Amino acid sequence: LVARMRPYAETVFSKMSALARQHDAVNLGQGFPDTDGPEEVLQAARRAIAAGYNQYPPGQGVPALRSAIAEHQHDRYGIDLDPGTEVLVTSGATEAIASALLALLEPGDEVVTFEPYYDSYAAGISLAGGVQRCVPLTLPGPGFDRERLAAAFSERTKIVLLNTPHNPLGKVFTREELTVIADLAREHDAWVVSDEVYEHMTYDGAVHVPIATLPGMAERTLTIGSAGKTFSVTGWKVGWVSGPERLVTAVTTVKQYLTFATSSPLQHAVADALRLGPGILEELTSSLALRRDLLVEGLTAAGFEVSVPQGTYFVVADAAPLGVTDAVQWCLQLPERVGVVGVPVSVFCDSPDETASLVRFAFCKHQDKLHEACRRLAAMG
Amino acid sequence: LVARMRPYAETVFSKMSALARQHDAVNLGQGFPDTDGPEEVLQAARRAIAAGYNQYPPGQGVPALRSAIAEHQHDRYGIDLDPGTEVLVTSGATEAIASALLALLEPGDEVVTFEPYYDSYAAGISLAGGVQRCVPLTLPGPGFDRERLAAAFSERTKIVLLNTPHNPLGKVFTREELTVIADLAREHDAWVVSDEVYEHMTYDGAVHVPIATLPGMAERTLTIGSAGKTFSVTGWKVGWVSGPERLVTAVTTVKQYLTFATSSPLQHAVADALRLGPGILEELTSSLALRRDLLVEGLTAAGFEVSVPQGTYFVVADAAPLGVTDAVQWCLQLPERVGVVGVPVSVFCDSPDETASLVRFAFCKHQDKLHEACRRLAAMG
Ligand SMILES: CSCCC(=O)C(=O)O
Ligand SMILES: CSCCC(=O)C(=O)O
Repeated sequence: LVARMRPYAETVFSKMSALARQHDAVNLGQGFPDTDGPEEVLQAARRAIAAGYNQYPPGQGVPALRSAIAEHQHDRYGIDLDPGTEVLVTSGATEAIASALLALLEPGDEVVTFEPYYDSYAAGISLAGGVQRCVPLTLPGPGFDRERLAAAFSERTKIVLLNTPHNPLGKVFTREELTVIADLAREHDAWVVSDEVYEHMTYDGAVHVPIATLPGMAERTLTIGSAGKTFSVTGWKVGWVSGPERLVTAVTTVKQYLTFATSSPLQHAVADALRLGPGILEELTSSLALRRDLLVEGLTAAGFEVSVPQGTYFVVADAAPLGVTDAVQWCLQLPERVGVVGVPVSVFCDSPDETASLVRFAFCKHQDKLHEACRRLAAMG
Repeated sequence: LVARMRPYAETVFSKMSALARQHDAVNLGQGFPDTDGPEEVLQAARRAIAAGYNQYPPGQGVPALRSAIAEHQHDRYGIDLDPGTEVLVTSGATEAIASALLALLEPGDEVVTFEPYYDSYAAGISLAGGVQRCVPLTLPGPGFDRERLAAAFSERTKIVLLNTPHNPLGKVFTREELTVIADLAREHDAWVVSDEVYEHMTYDGAVHVPIATLPGMAERTLTIGSAGKTFSVTGWKVGWVSGPERLVTAVTTVKQYLTFATSSPLQHAVADALRLGPGILEELTSSLALRRDLLVEGLTAAGFEVSVPQGTYFVVADAAPLGVTDAVQWCLQLPERVGVVGVPVSVFCDSPDETASLVRFAFCKHQDKLHEACRRLAAMG
């Protein structure tokens, strides 16, 4: 394995899901729902296979899906996109992130991210030969310090890699915060790559604002979405990235040599899914909101100090009140000892000290699983 | 777009398929069949979706598919693999190639390939910061010069990137030729990455020999296969790579940050497909052999000088007898002028002069399409 990838071994999600299988534990680790997406969407996929959509689609994605993505961005956010040149379908959001980083970063170029950050950001930046500059998101809030953010920018800043709603903290960036970020990006002539895969999962009236909708930002922003997250089919590996033609063309060039194209029948199904209208998404969100409350309540009762997320399907809980100082060790033992899987937040961090006792639990699971996990954690003693 | 990717714009396959759609031409360009794989395989995919295999599979691939791949390699070639550690499922062979190159190449490391070569090899090597060293395959034959091959190796050689059966030339490397390559790889302590996606498509008694079966080679070889090619479902984007644990682990590390995992329901279907037994593959091969003969005959009658391929689903035809000196220009005009799409062989080459008048035509198409293409080419005048 090349030097630049040596720090990035097995992802924490794979490792924790393997432990979950091994110990038959309640898996609140990896972020995938345990209920498949709407029956209409599954049927659409089966129909696409029967209808013969089984050969190479165009590398940029099937036209029906690119149009549906453009319509979605228009109807929901007022973003205007040409589906012919400004939308690229990818093999999951992970491929969108990797392709964007590999397409835009010359060796030594810098990328500003918030910390904690999703693990593939660091690996993708390193693979491209780039350098990551982290700015902490601090609890409670969570919020960030404008000066620290400004100090993370330099002459070499090429990209701001944003994630809103934010995994793992559940933070939905406000328009004011996004304006601060956008101003700095413009000032330093940086691109923004915005991972918005949890766009439809916001609670308590929090509103997801795509940074591409801020003045002057459409022309410098790549926005990433995910059918897996949006329609509860994480195993399909269909995602997308949209933005100005120049950027999308660059990302497409790299993508076509990573996977050439993305699964044709599943693309057709996702196109149909996006056309089902907002009702289906609202249903999912309100069901998730109930399960969030359930998990927050259960973890609190079990003795954790819980920060209530405004978005995503993750809750971050501080295990310090339970005497935990090293959540990494604690989470590795939890599947066998207690029969529950969670993910230590420090694995999303370069400076793990400040988050040493934090654990992320996913609530995109059946209510009875959430109940059972909380029961086990409360009985842990 | 970063400098290292600037020479690699839209793939020739995307461009030619777009021209085919635009002019409603007979598309003998991009290598995909126009008949979908066996009905059982399509049904297996629909069943997997209905059965609920729609969430993240393990990053290395679903266990059922990894076992099926290991069994296939054992039953067909006597290669023994541990499905737990020596097999990785990828999002098509393209991802296997890209991940292998990105996992193994430090900047400046060299890769020996034969020329003509499949386009993603050059792009992948460049993306990883590597340097490609080409050795010509010369017609007729096609064959290679042992001295030229030896001269392409150096202190910096890290990988030999082999392709057998060979796209576009249709060459099936013999055991003797592979021994020459293997000896040089061992002598220079190089890895071999062997793209064998056309392993089941050989004709006239030509036998596909995986280079991993040569003495001492299993420990230094990554072998790449493709469900898309093998089962005529190129749009599913399921491929694999197998080899020694150390290499497969390195490739897995990169793969998990490119796409994380590969489509779960389609992996389950491919596992079922591999277990259908060799009959289904023999049927496909004999049907392809007939169509090869048909195309060879038709192109010869139309005035081309045709070299008869022993493998793959491509024929290379020399258009020089028709007065063509620049096949790139000629192929760009062909869809509109004649209603046929072919791919100029020189786009697979660093030294395009020697192949300037060669055109690759695919015969994995309906017989009537092949007839119609030949009719149009013969009538071209
Ligand atoms: C791609 S596996 C990880 C899924 C996920 O987004 C998470 O658990 O954070
Ligand atoms: C991945 S698109 C190209 C398909 C192919 O293998 C070819 O046409 O050579």
